[in-house]
Amino acid sequence: MEKGFRQWKEQCLNKLDLSKKGQVDEDISHVVSLLNGCEQYFTTSSCSGRIILIDGAQKHGCVWLFVSHQQCQSDDLMSAVARSSGDAVLKFEPFVLHVQCRRLEDAQLTHSVAINSGFRNSGLTVGKTGKIITAVRSTHGLEVPLSHQGKLLVQQEYISFLTQIANQKMEENLRRIHRFYQNLQSALHADNLPAEPQTHHRSQETKNQTSVYKRRRRRERQPGTDCCHGDGSSIEPELDDCLDLFT
Amino acid sequence: MEKGFRQWKEQCLNKLDLSKKGQVDEDISHVVSLLNGCEQYFTTSSCSGRIILIDGAQKHGCVWLFVSHQQCQSDDLMSAVARSSGDAVLKFEPFVLHVQCRRLEDAQLTHSVAINSGFRNSGLTVGKTGKIITAVRSTHGLEVPLSHQGKLLVQQEYISFLTQIANQKMEENLRRIHRFYQNLQSALHADNLPAEPQTHHRSQETKNQTSVYKRRRRRERQPGTDCCHGDGSSIEPELDDCLDLFT
Repeated sequence: MEKGFRQWKEQCLNKLDLSKKGQVDEDISHVVSLLNGCEQYFTTSSCSGRIILIDGAQKHGCVWLFVSHQQCQSDDLMSAVARSSGDAVLKFEPFVLHVQCRRLEDAQLTHSVAINSGFRNSGLTVGKTGKIITAVRSTHGLEVPLSHQGKLLVQQEYISFLTQIANQKMEENLRRIHRFYQNLQSALHADNLPAEPQTHHRSQETKNQTSVYKRRRRRERQPGTDCCHGDGSSIEPELDDCLDLFT
Repeated sequence: MEKGFRQWKEQCLNKLDLSKKGQVDEDISHVVSLLNGCEQYFTTSSCSGRIILIDGAQKHGCVWLFVSHQQCQSDDLMSAVARSSGDAVLKFEPFVLHVQCRRLEDAQLTHSVAINSGFRNSGLTVGKTGKIITAVRSTHGLEVPLSHQGKLLVQQEYISFLTQIANQKMEENLRRIHRFYQNLQSALHADNLPAEPQTHHRSQETKNQTSVYKRRRRRERQPGTDCCHGDGSSIEPELDDCLDLFT
């Protein structure tokens, strides 16, 4: 199993990057390097976050009218949407990362770091062949129809407003990536300390982290708890579970 | 551990439903009943899917201007957005379900059913205390800013168009819930068959399922693979892993 993981990792990291871009996005190369530098992890796919304009409902599938991994200008979006001949939709897609992990405990660590850094849609996949993957995902999105059958549905001022919103989301996304990177460094560091000091170090660190996360969570959760079946305490079961990992 | 799970389940199902609605949404009561009727599962929270209008950036947090768990009328949205005094955002939030599972294998089964039914953002959480939860989540969303500081940003025709889109998403959401229910029934049935026939039954069923899923996946994945780091084959590692469960 240990040997199997090392081989998997070697094969994956030596393979050609088959994505169109062919390389890791600049804003997350440090995160990818940190993980790939640990023997218990390797990344299988990633995107730092992007603002995209897709022209759907086309004869031959979708057409990409615009992609940016950085903040963008409203003029760029205007000229892109002008090329739409179908149903154009503007999306902000946040940071996403898939990390293959050696053991379940390793996956629990990355998962807990992800949740605690604000990536609340993160989760594990455990395959029957022993493949264990943490998917880091955010709830942070934007999905706005802009044209129908090539006809613009909104005014230029609205597109300027959307550009601001998308850029703000991009900024917040970068802040969360930074938080993820820092929390990951701390967690990996704690994980590598010798048994005794480690316990102490962790529980100290955790008290602060936990209270910060609980505060943030309480604030963010308010709308979500207003509706639908749940026992209140466990409407976001991931977070409670993941905090367990630090205690 | 087995005893622990039974106690957890009993406590959870006997607890008051602390959500505002206080009960399970009508469109998913059969799904929740099916799971709670199995000794290896119980649901901890759920929402069948909803169209919501939230007024954000308010002095005292968010205000809910509109919520519907069914298809809605554009007039209802128009009159709701007219009450906005902050930044109103229209969202479609798809089906979400949290299922606590007795063992990891039980969680793998619900997770694989979820992925194969189109809920591609699903994932597991494994807590240190032994809590194992499958979160069933979709990628299917809509998030459209409609007002800023109480001022409407779009025209009435655009809100009518959005209502259509949201209602279509609600319909597709119901289809996926139905698919999830049917796949869950088959998987639970296969899981309960005696060892020999079970293997045969499963592998027969799987061949059809797998090819259908692969086709669907290929079609849906196209835009996603156009960009960002990945080895192509594993940009959506969950699906591959989950199909493993059936083979």
